[in-house]
Amino acid sequence: MAIRTIEVRERVMARNDALAATVREQLAAHDVPAFNLVSSPGAGKTALLERTLATVGEELCISVITGDVQTDNDAVRLAAHTDRIGSAVITGGACHLDALQIQSALEAIDLDATGLLFIENVGNLVCPANWDLGEQGKIVLFSVTEGEDKPLKYPAMFERASHVVMTKTDLLAHVPFDIELAIANARRVNPDLEVLRVSSLDGSGLADWFDFLRRSVARARVHVNAG
Amino acid sequence: MAIRTIEVRERVMARNDALAATVREQLAAHDVPAFNLVSSPGAGKTALLERTLATVGEELCISVITGDVQTDNDAVRLAAHTDRIGSAVITGGACHLDALQIQSALEAIDLDATGLLFIENVGNLVCPANWDLGEQGKIVLFSVTEGEDKPLKYPAMFERASHVVMTKTDLLAHVPFDIELAIANARRVNPDLEVLRVSSLDGSGLADWFDFLRRSVARARVHVNAG
Repeated sequence: MAIRTIEVRERVMARNDALAATVREQLAAHDVPAFNLVSSPGAGKTALLERTLATVGEELCISVITGDVQTDNDAVRLAAHTDRIGSAVITGGACHLDALQIQSALEAIDLDATGLLFIENVGNLVCPANWDLGEQGKIVLFSVTEGEDKPLKYPAMFERASHVVMTKTDLLAHVPFDIELAIANARRVNPDLEVLRVSSLDGSGLADWFDFLRRSVARARVHVNAG
Repeated sequence: MAIRTIEVRERVMARNDALAATVREQLAAHDVPAFNLVSSPGAGKTALLERTLATVGEELCISVITGDVQTDNDAVRLAAHTDRIGSAVITGGACHLDALQIQSALEAIDLDATGLLFIENVGNLVCPANWDLGEQGKIVLFSVTEGEDKPLKYPAMFERASHVVMTKTDLLAHVPFDIELAIANARRVNPDLEVLRVSSLDGSGLADWFDFLRRSVARARVHVNAG
């Protein structure tokens, strides 16, 4: 029976990958870079998006798809900062978003008026690692209140991410957390990881984060001009 | 295809529930209360177990089964505090422990010499909620660095838990976290939840936690005498 489960799962995953490819083409046709934000529950995805929408939401024409197991709380929090919310996906118990949900959510988003898309995944360091959503890159948020060994314990997520954002750095003075060790562990798993450090509470590091987003949008626009 | 997936999953879950019943009988025959510790990654399960083993590990004859996706780091951390470690289960990518893993892990544990069993689940607020491990109760750890709405966003876990332990209370002065609101949200989901508050760092609240464990062991022993 274990084998049958795996067979079915592989067929579901293959179908997801095909849908993700379609989503990726759709986003590329509109030159919209899309980032899949993943982390533990409570690592600060929504707080970072709140600061991001408030500061560069209009400048960069940011749209957001939020995914949650049961509520649309995150979408409601973000709605205070933008009119561009695309969709709140309530997964009804599922532990990750999938490409079919993103394809459906995109129907509510005007991609011609979108410069950058965030997909806020379900808070979970395990399952979302395996589900391609058609994104340009996965960005994993890693809070300084977690353990330094999280990248070693959840390596798939860190292997498949392009960026790690160390969050809640304002708490570094109050927690026994060695941020350099944490980053070294992340790079042991994935030497190509780009690292950012932010506090959505005191604002430190956010300028670098916004610059990264501006560069991502500019790169997509260069592609438009070149095409 | 979605329907086929569910059919297979239901058969797997039914098999898990049958195995969990066997585990529960085995633990009851030895009058060992077992607690399934669940939480987000980094909420402090291992830190709480370290303090617990160091202080009442010998007194209460505590054994531990640790589950992790990829490493045995947690078991190594705990091994410094006790000789009683039963088993480190590496799930190899799975996002939760299951009853078959617990049944196998128990083969390495002397239940006659065990007064209390902890099962430290994979850090994940979604999937472990659905998998009965044969435990007496699920204890969900909820860190004050997470959002107050976690119980509303991950209700299955809080519904199925008997206790919630608010962790990292030493950080309350440094985070915008309303602990009374968080507890109220947890009780909205599950009015029967017992609530404890601890800091494994400064030790506050640990005396209440140890008393709860002592009562759980004493209740099991009364059962022995009555039998």
